Amino acid sequence: MPTLYHHPLSAPSRYVRLVLAEYGEEVTMTEVQPLLRDEAFLALNPAGTLPVFADDNEAVVSDAAVIAEYLAETRGVRFGEDSLMPDTAVERAEARRLVAWFGQKMHSEVTRLLVNELVFKRLAGSKGGSPDSTAIRAGRTNIRYHIRYINYLAERRHWLAGRRLSLADLAAAAEVSCLDYIGEVPWEEGEAAKAWYARIKSRLSFRPILADRIKGASPSPHYTDPDF
Amino acid sequence: MPTLYHHPLSAPSRYVRLVLAEYGEEVTMTEVQPLLRDEAFLALNPAGTLPVFADDNEAVVSDAAVIAEYLAETRGVRFGEDSLMPDTAVERAEARRLVAWFGQKMHSEVTRLLVNELVFKRLAGSKGGSPDSTAIRAGRTNIRYHIRYINYLAERRHWLAGRRLSLADLAAAAEVSCLDYIGEVPWEEGEAAKAWYARIKSRLSFRPILADRIKGASPSPHYTDPDF
Repeated sequence: MPTLYHHPLSAPSRYVRLVLAEYGEEVTMTEVQPLLRDEAFLALNPAGTLPVFADDNEAVVSDAAVIAEYLAETRGVRFGEDSLMPDTAVERAEARRLVAWFGQKMHSEVTRLLVNELVFKRLAGSKGGSPDSTAIRAGRTNIRYHIRYINYLAERRHWLAGRRLSLADLAAAAEVSCLDYIGEVPWEEGEAAKAWYARIKSRLSFRPILADRIKGASPSPHYTDPDF
Repeated sequence: MPTLYHHPLSAPSRYVRLVLAEYGEEVTMTEVQPLLRDEAFLALNPAGTLPVFADDNEAVVSDAAVIAEYLAETRGVRFGEDSLMPDTAVERAEARRLVAWFGQKMHSEVTRLLVNELVFKRLAGSKGGSPDSTAIRAGRTNIRYHIRYINYLAERRHWLAGRRLSLADLAAAAEVSCLDYIGEVPWEEGEAAKAWYARIKSRLSFRPILADRIKGASPSPHYTDPDF
């Protein structure tokens, strides 16, 4: 069985877990402590980032967006229309643009800042350092723009990249779900964004994400609530 | 004819120009001033980043890595074995991992810092602000690790991702070429990296890159020299 090296509150890890679950793939989950990666982990992925996917054919794939493309090519092909990758090159470009938007831009401007400062540093104990209030303030300012952008897309399209559920929705939902766990999503910024997230949240693939619990960091009261 | 919105010293723009040139595609080149993007440009690409590719079919594609995938799908297919995308899913994952490594990690840790601080801020005049010496120092420290990583790969493989030239080489060469233009590459860090760059530099697709001149920022003396 393939192995996924992940952390429950790592948004890129959640993105890959959602892709795996949508494709009905079972994996062994190995938890890696964020901010405390060792030499053995760096040998798997020199970039030191989570997640890493070790496939049955001994291929080791890192970078969430790259793993998702790999899974779409090796598993998604079986799903035809529901492969999470749109049919045309133009639509695929739009899905990939949004994967990059959420996985890189939103992640670095919001999720990484808030999750690192509010949770991961605490989990890392004395090695984590103290929370940086400037980073927290920046994350809390930036999240409003990102929720409004999801809202803008959700008002115009059935799913974020178009007519069908795609990798873009899962990449966005992975970021949002980590922020919702720590109660940092200003849902009042967008009704359409909220309705989109409620739809994603009710999918079978989302159940393990909603069941995640991080020791020493309880989820926000509405985290699992479908009518939040 | 398609249009590429670019800047001559933007590494992601150079990446896409190299992909286009390898595929023998002609485009109209429209120069956009970095750090000074206006509303019209943000309408093309809300992320505000260069380059943007406007195709003949009216598709507007942004994010260099996404444009490269789009070009591989729409133009590269004609090239069979020489499509810049390896044949197997595992090899494609390795090529994509390296595209992300150079285009995201090296770009944010090195190229963006040095080119922004040493060139783009000056080009932007009073709106650019003054150079940040901490960022310049960080870029100059980090570049050594990245040149050594290219060296490590070039010692083990014919091209960076494997046996054949791929998107990974072009993504790396785009970053390196911007840094070489401003004379910031510590070539003494790696003979194999240097030999790899000399090979890339001698390709037909690289000629327009070597002919680039930025007003007020002359290239380093060895920039166009094949035996640097």
